[in-house]
This record gives sequence, structure tokens and C-alpha cells, in this order.
Amino acid sequence: MNNFSYNVTARSGHGRAHCAIIETPHGCIETPNFIFCATHGAIKGATMDQIKATGAQFVLGNTYHLWLQPGPDVVERHGGLQRFTGWQGPMLTDSGGFQIFSLGYGGVVDEIKGKKDQSARPHSLLKITEDGAFFRSYIDGTLCFLSPERSVQIQQKLGADFILPLDECTPFHMKKEETAASMQRSHRWEARSLQQFFTTYNAQQRMYGIVQGGVYEDLRRESIDFVNSQPFFAQAIGGSLGGSKQQMYDVVDFTMRYLVQDRPTHLLGIGGLRDILEGVQSGVDTFDCVHPTRIARHGCALIAKPEAEFAKEHINLKNKIYREDFSPIDPECDCYTCRNFTRSYLHHLFKAKESTGGLLLTIHNARFMVRWMESIRRAIREDRWATFYKQHRG
Amino acid sequence: MNNFSYNVTARSGHGRAHCAIIETPHGCIETPNFIFCATHGAIKGATMDQIKATGAQFVLGNTYHLWLQPGPDVVERHGGLQRFTGWQGPMLTDSGGFQIFSLGYGGVVDEIKGKKDQSARPHSLLKITEDGAFFRSYIDGTLCFLSPERSVQIQQKLGADFILPLDECTPFHMKKEETAASMQRSHRWEARSLQQFFTTYNAQQRMYGIVQGGVYEDLRRESIDFVNSQPFFAQAIGGSLGGSKQQMYDVVDFTMRYLVQDRPTHLLGIGGLRDILEGVQSGVDTFDCVHPTRIARHGCALIAKPEAEFAKEHINLKNKIYREDFSPIDPECDCYTCRNFTRSYLHHLFKAKESTGGLLLTIHNARFMVRWMESIRRAIREDRWATFYKQHRG
Repeated sequence: MNNFSYNVTARSGHGRAHCAIIETPHGCIETPNFIFCATHGAIKGATMDQIKATGAQFVLGNTYHLWLQPGPDVVERHGGLQRFTGWQGPMLTDSGGFQIFSLGYGGVVDEIKGKKDQSARPHSLLKITEDGAFFRSYIDGTLCFLSPERSVQIQQKLGADFILPLDECTPFHMKKEETAASMQRSHRWEARSLQQFFTTYNAQQRMYGIVQGGVYEDLRRESIDFVNSQPFFAQAIGGSLGGSKQQMYDVVDFTMRYLVQDRPTHLLGIGGLRDILEGVQSGVDTFDCVHPTRIARHGCALIAKPEAEFAKEHINLKNKIYREDFSPIDPECDCYTCRNFTRSYLHHLFKAKESTGGLLLTIHNARFMVRWMESIRRAIREDRWATFYKQHRG
Repeated sequence: MNNFSYNVTARSGHGRAHCAIIETPHGCIETPNFIFCATHGAIKGATMDQIKATGAQFVLGNTYHLWLQPGPDVVERHGGLQRFTGWQGPMLTDSGGFQIFSLGYGGVVDEIKGKKDQSARPHSLLKITEDGAFFRSYIDGTLCFLSPERSVQIQQKLGADFILPLDECTPFHMKKEETAASMQRSHRWEARSLQQFFTTYNAQQRMYGIVQGGVYEDLRRESIDFVNSQPFFAQAIGGSLGGSKQQMYDVVDFTMRYLVQDRPTHLLGIGGLRDILEGVQSGVDTFDCVHPTRIARHGCALIAKPEAEFAKEHINLKNKIYREDFSPIDPECDCYTCRNFTRSYLHHLFKAKESTGGLLLTIHNARFMVRWMESIRRAIREDRWATFYKQHRG
């Protein structure tokens, strides 16, 4: 019995934007959709039933963090991440590579991916060889080694529905020759990851391939050809996406033009509202980013334009203009927070340093992302994507 | 129409332990019961619907904190604390005095009440006069003045069902003459509080009286006579309860012997399981304490003996013995946390510094307190309180 399938259910006229259903042993994912980040196996500050109640369908855990704490054996003995974390729906784990390399190379990858606050951490990457990467644990400084094989073995123990092969994450500032060499090593690592995946095959899991190649079209083509040729269930767009939003949209669009279309495609680490709009237009199925839940903990609520401040996609409830604002974040939002609380109350919670404020905004931002993805799917299904896209592109 | 009433519904044989119903405009409280602390108008790290789901019936807010942030006007313009905080059930506010005086006198009151970590704060109490207390705001150092009248006016704006009169909270180390003088001033302040209460009367609120007198029986008698003689709806036991658990039980029992029995009685700031058992035995209706929710955030789960560590009433899930403990905190507990998560997962969350751990333990500890109070009420109703009391006294 095959518990996994991918079926396109609607297309936007002549474009690549589409709706699809990804079937997994833990339920279905309607795409386009957003994956929420449960780095250590928890959505920070919230419970999984609160996230489920927003309509979220898909959650990821980070292999790097879960490997070091609590360790894959503990998760395996629970029967996998779903049993461990209480999230009953589909899950994905990454390879662990992104954290190791971004910590190692420093701020550049973080900058591109919008994860600036990791750049302050000490550089813990020691050495990359053909075998894999040596680094020090951020917890206790222990010497660790991650190879493609080990990453797959760890992810098999973690037991998420979807796993990623180890790839090298190269920063934007890298020269073309270096990017090419790194990409080719990533392809060898992905092939080894696949081999390990099939050697210790678990019918309850499927593997994504990852397209590298930085901002160079010829390298992207080479990487696309590699990924297209390998027996991956799905595919992800990784690596540097450039130095500007427009360059990112161009790289993604170029990549989507050549990737096979009978597999779900994930855009790694990207989750701005406009970014998602452009990704969907290019044919991407899923997106992930810590952004919606991270900004929630810092007092920021996602909100539809034009109210969002300074062309951002959110308002900052710590701003004193909300002190006596007795309206909800969004009167049209049906989340627990908007149904029950004023901006004034939320402002108060952040002023009083009450972490309930972060929780209430996490609920709102999660629900906002769910509704944003729903509105995108509805527009595609109802054959008005072109209008929707133009309207929201602004 | 009178929205408030107090009716005893069951008594334990010849003793003072009893069940009662306190009716308020926001619903009924079954007693004996526990009041959860929402200091700034939120149960730290949780949402009010999560607390409601545990079966909690009664929540308090702290006037001192809510006065300084967001200010009573903001709460009033929401229509009161219930609308502001999203807690739809009965609420109580204190007078603000406890925080001002305990911050002022330093650690001694905190010590008695088990609130040690406040003693590290700077002493901000400047001066106590017959009029009231001058102190500095802990937020911005502003000079503030709290009088009995102002405390009532603030609490009328906050709009909780129950309010407390301003009293002076004297520490255990105070001499008898000083305790007597302070108590007499508290009586004058309580009388002024009552006068203000009736002058600006709000039919949706009722006032508690507070018994002072420290550990001195003759002073307690004098204070009881005062409280019994005044038109309070309910009564609370305040002031120093002594230097040991046994002394506290004795002071409470002595006080309860003479307080009128047609009013609900609250024991201020006390909430240990054994303390509650003794309080109920003496005839107390309600208890409050930050303990269950505070220890939750530090990794401690309330649990029935004999497993609780070192004669404590909890286990500390940060302890490495729980790393691979795949059982729930309590297999007989029906809370969200116990139904879905292992001790191993909770241990992991605290190791990984994920605040979801504190939230999950807050849910468990709140449910534990609710079940503890339910089991006490059931024992009284089913006429087996004497046995229950002996059994749990240990």
C-alpha cells in the first residue's frame, strides 16, 4: 500500500500556479501551503492543539536541534516525532546541514534567509570533507560529525513523513567556481543520502531532493537535471537565492521552469507573504519560515495591507499607538485572539512582559498564514488567480 | 436583583469543613476552591481558555500591577477585567497593599508566603502615614500614593466581582505592640475602604474584610470582632501567619473559630496541598497562590504522593531521571498534557529551553489543583471528609 501521493487538483490557466493534495500516512496537505517550524519539536510557547486549531496542516522539526537534544533514540522510542511532539499531522525534518553550515559560514546565509539573530552565535563548523561535516555541538562543545548517511539514519529514527538529504548550504558571497564545486559535492551527498534511504528503507517516509546552484542559471540547470533524474518523491529549492527579493523571485521562477512537475516542490526557509505569492505564481507547493511565529514573540501581528506599517506585512503591538486601541488585531480574523482580545490588551501584555502575549500572537499569526494560504488556494480553484496575484502584488 | 449569594451546601459532621456555592454576576464558585493568579491580567504563558478548560472557576488580578500597567482607565474602558482579560468567570482583585508592603519591608512577608524571589527587588516603599502609603513605581520610579479610597476607586474601575480593602501587611518579625498598632490602622483603613465602596457603590461588586493580628490570639480576636461587625460580603485571613506551617495552621484554625460563618472565607496567598487540607478542615472556602503556575514554569509538576520528591508535592521534570521516562506525569490525570505527552518529552522541552514546557506544566498543575479541590468537595459532600483528611494529612 502506498500511503504517499501527489495530485494536482487545479491549475491557474496557462500559468504554473496550482493546487495539489499531498497524501501522507499522517493525513493530507492541501497545497499551496505553509509549514510551521517546531525546531525542537514544539511551536515555541504554544501547544500543538492550538496550532492544529488554526487549521495548520504541516509542521517541521530541525534534525540538528533534535539530534543534539533529546537525541534520535529518545524520539524513536516514542514511536517517532508525531508521538513525541503530539502533532498528529504530516511532518518533515531537514537534514541538519543548514544549521551547521549557516552557523559555520556566519551571517550571510542567515541574512539571505532572514534569520539574522543566529549570526551572533560562535562559528562552530570545524571542517567539511567529502565524507561530511565536523562541528562542535552548540550545547556542550562536543565534537560531532554529520555525513549524508548519518543524517538519513537520524531522520529515519525521528520518523517524520518527509526527510531531506544532506546538502552543503553555500552563502551568497561565494564565487561561481566555489558554488559549482559545492553543488557537485551536494549532488554526491544527495546520491549517498538516497542510497542510505533505500538501504534502510522505511515505507512511512519519503525523501525530497534539493536543487542547488546559487544564482547561476547554468549551475541551477545542472542541479535541476540531477534532481529530476533521481528517484526523489519531492523536490526542494535550496542554496543562495540571491541578494535581493527580485533576484530570489527570478531564481525560483527559473528553477521552477525546469523542475519536473509531477512532484511537490518546497521552497526552503522562505515565508514572507509577497514571497509566497511569487513562489506560488512560479509553481511552488510549500513554504516554511520561522518568521510568523518568531515575530509573534516580539509583539508583531501579521495583518493585511494597507494598515501594515512601513510596507511591512505586520504591525508591532508594542507601539504605544495601540495602548487604547480597543479593536481586535483584525476584525475579519476568526482566530481565538481576534475573537477575544483587543490590541490594547495585547499591547499591555507586551509592556508587562507577559509571555501570554507571544502565545496569543503566535495563534493569530499561524491563523493568518493558514488563511493566506487558503485564500491563495481558493483563488486558484475558482480560476481567478491572475487577478488575485496582480492585486496582492501591489 | 442580588447577583451575589453564599450558601453552604454540605457540612462535614461536627467539623467546620463545608461545601458552599458563591454566586456572582459572572457565575458560581463551588467551594472549597482555588483562585488562580493572573497578576497582570494573564495566567503567565497560557491563554484563559486553556485555564478554563482545566475546570478553574475563579481568577484574581493584582491591583498593584494593573494600576501601574495598563492603568485602571484602560481596563475600565474595556468594560472591566473580564472583558479585558478574556476570563469570563468570577474574579477578585486585591488592594495593592500586599505588593507595596512586601516590597517595602523586604523578604520577610515573602518568606512566610513562600514568595522568596520578590525579596531581591529594591525596596520601593517610602513612607506610611495615616492617609496611606507612598512608594515608587517598580516600572519607572514615579512617586505613587495608595490610600484606602484610591485602592477602592482603582478596583471599582478594574471591575472584578470581589475587591479587598487596603490593609497594612506586617511581617512576622514585628513586635506585638507594632503589630497591634498596624492592625488598628488596618481597621481604620478597612472602614474607610468600606465607606468609599458604598459611596461609589457598584452593584456588580462585593467587598471582603481582612482579619489581621499576626500570631497573637488576643489581637486576632480584636480583628475578628472588627471584621464580624462590618458589612463585608466575605472575609479574608491576612497578615503574618507565623514562622512555621504548624503555627500557620493554628492561627488559621483559631481565626476560623470566631469568624462569622455566613460569609465565604478566603485564606490569602496560601496554596500548598497540605495547607489547603488544613484550611478546609478549619472552615476556609478559598485559597490563592502563585505556586502551582510558578513552579510549572520552572519544570515542576504537581503530583500525588508518594512519588513527589523529598516530601514535596511535585516532581522536577528537569531531573535527568525523566530523560527516558515514557509515562505521562500522572496516568490518572485527564489534562491535555497527561493525555498527550511523556515525561521524557517534557524533560526535553525544559532542556531545550522551550517555553511550551512551562505552558504544558501550567495546564497540568492547574488541572491538578482543580482535581484536588474537587476531591475535597466530593469527600465533604459524600460525608467522608474525616477519613479523607486523615489519609492526606499523612
